[in-house]
Amino acid sequence: MRAVVFNGVHDVSVEEVPDPEIHLPTDAIVRVLATCVCGSDLWYYRGESERKPGSRIGHEFVGVVEEVGSAVSTVAVGDVVIAPFAFSDGTCPNCAFGFPSSCIHGGVWGGRDAEGFRADGGQGELVRAPLADGTLVVVPGGMPSEELLPSLLALSDVMGTGHHAAISAGVRPGATVAVVGDGAVGLSGVIAAKRLGAERIIALSRHADRQALARELGATDVVEQRGPDAIEPVLSLTVGVGVDAVLECVGTGESMATAFAIARPGSRVGYVGVPHGAEVPLQAAFRHNVGLVGGMAPVRAYLPELLEDVLAGTITPGRLFDFRGGLDDIPAGYAAMDERRAIKAMARL
Amino acid sequence: MRAVVFNGVHDVSVEEVPDPEIHLPTDAIVRVLATCVCGSDLWYYRGESERKPGSRIGHEFVGVVEEVGSAVSTVAVGDVVIAPFAFSDGTCPNCAFGFPSSCIHGGVWGGRDAEGFRADGGQGELVRAPLADGTLVVVPGGMPSEELLPSLLALSDVMGTGHHAAISAGVRPGATVAVVGDGAVGLSGVIAAKRLGAERIIALSRHADRQALARELGATDVVEQRGPDAIEPVLSLTVGVGVDAVLECVGTGESMATAFAIARPGSRVGYVGVPHGAEVPLQAAFRHNVGLVGGMAPVRAYLPELLEDVLAGTITPGRLFDFRGGLDDIPAGYAAMDERRAIKAMARL
Repeated sequence: MRAVVFNGVHDVSVEEVPDPEIHLPTDAIVRVLATCVCGSDLWYYRGESERKPGSRIGHEFVGVVEEVGSAVSTVAVGDVVIAPFAFSDGTCPNCAFGFPSSCIHGGVWGGRDAEGFRADGGQGELVRAPLADGTLVVVPGGMPSEELLPSLLALSDVMGTGHHAAISAGVRPGATVAVVGDGAVGLSGVIAAKRLGAERIIALSRHADRQALARELGATDVVEQRGPDAIEPVLSLTVGVGVDAVLECVGTGESMATAFAIARPGSRVGYVGVPHGAEVPLQAAFRHNVGLVGGMAPVRAYLPELLEDVLAGTITPGRLFDFRGGLDDIPAGYAAMDERRAIKAMARL
Repeated sequence: MRAVVFNGVHDVSVEEVPDPEIHLPTDAIVRVLATCVCGSDLWYYRGESERKPGSRIGHEFVGVVEEVGSAVSTVAVGDVVIAPFAFSDGTCPNCAFGFPSSCIHGGVWGGRDAEGFRADGGQGELVRAPLADGTLVVVPGGMPSEELLPSLLALSDVMGTGHHAAISAGVRPGATVAVVGDGAVGLSGVIAAKRLGAERIIALSRHADRQALARELGATDVVEQRGPDAIEPVLSLTVGVGVDAVLECVGTGESMATAFAIARPGSRVGYVGVPHGAEVPLQAAFRHNVGLVGGMAPVRAYLPELLEDVLAGTITPGRLFDFRGGLDDIPAGYAAMDERRAIKAMARL
């Protein structure tokens, strides 16, 4: 089969690799219908994090089950399934507590499962999915339309991550919410905040095209400034006290500082941007009871309820994919995202 | 009148000071029935924080209203009232959001009100209480019994602070909770966790007398180790994953590190110990979704519901006062708390 391989900084390519096989009775083999590139894929692409040359990459996909191990019971051959960005058994104490992202027996695509067998990356024609029962979510109704497919794919990571920011920040009906970051996760956060009933959604965005998309997705206000300059404009929209909930969708020191500065006393910063040089302003946070909640999103836990809304057409996170091609176009998708020409790149296989 | 005055490090004394007067129509004058010494009073006492020599101190008291300004409507002469550790108007956007500790027009006892007049400290015979309607909570039933008085006094700070740790950590019925810190706030946290329905309460305490009190107040388990050595014992009590909620009631670097290390993925550390050299282990917190929520407790917001339970006899936080005397004994109370001979010192006037 063919799959995307990481060769080195700014160098990924589509290569011929061995077909996956069932190793464990809990495995399934999935033929990929669509996959995409994550903002976090850019870290190794840019050399900001280590990755072994020759490794298989990608962690978001929708596909059709081609084979299942003897112990798999909730997923059958022919099912259309969504894979969250990590695999998990669904039964360990952390899964039971609602955090499959910390599954004791889980792992990540391209990494090893609990028995030491390597799982495939998500950017390829076929994927061995460990812990299929706990991991894969069946899409009812069989093969999805081409219109629906992108929104299903968005549920594998970015939509669930934006939702996690909103849940972590405690977004409630009627709330005034600020979203720091206008990338794919930030825009998913706008969708999530609207879905949870926020009345006012302030998007911090300095790109005209993303501002327009943010407004289409539910943002009621846009603040163009960034960093310290964004604080006063947000406060002036909120009688000087700050917003009821902040979605921090970047992870830098500047974005975290902005998030805390615009959060009202007693509110929470919901953070899902992996911290890069970010710090918590602990004294100010303590003085005014601004909490910090979030982390690596437990996407699998949110998938069923978000899938229901995608199928009902009430949310369409597939709109975030502004670069579309086939498997061979994925390297170009990385480049487009790296150069900020695209919000998020998707491949239809 | 007589009141306690801070003279310098390890030096407080009872002095003759001017009687307070109504300055603003929203003021009340309260004759103090009982007052106490807070762990945070020890900071200036020990020279760990700055304080002007000659300043008036104390921020916890129960008393009888002696005079009210013309605009006061919810508090009348003769009412027995509890004062939370900060004054607040009860109507500003932050008060309305449930965080009177961040009241826009508020302040602290011994500090200045929004009009620039200095409020009295709580450790004295009389106190001018600014914003009386928003601040003071009337105790129904008139003069309390000597048995009830300590528990009412505990509501002015320590009980509400322990409760805030529990609320911030998200303690729910059936939860397994750890309490870091066996001082008056930590022990209040034990009471609060039990009150909120925690099934298992693990007290981290190395003092035999405090361990015994913690167990009487609701702790089901005690871990004697401290710092890194406490982690393994707590994990072994929780199938290796950590507790559902952590109450961090100290504020040091060590206590915060312990709190995060014993919090299970997806849980929250509720912190109420003013941070002193504490840091958030952001990468680990992100990886496993351990949140940090809390801060200076909005005690006034919690007072009515906690008062109801004190009056019903379901909680008796007055048990924390293990040093009792009169106004003249307060300097000895500071010394006893400083030398860890007492958990918390109370004076009956």
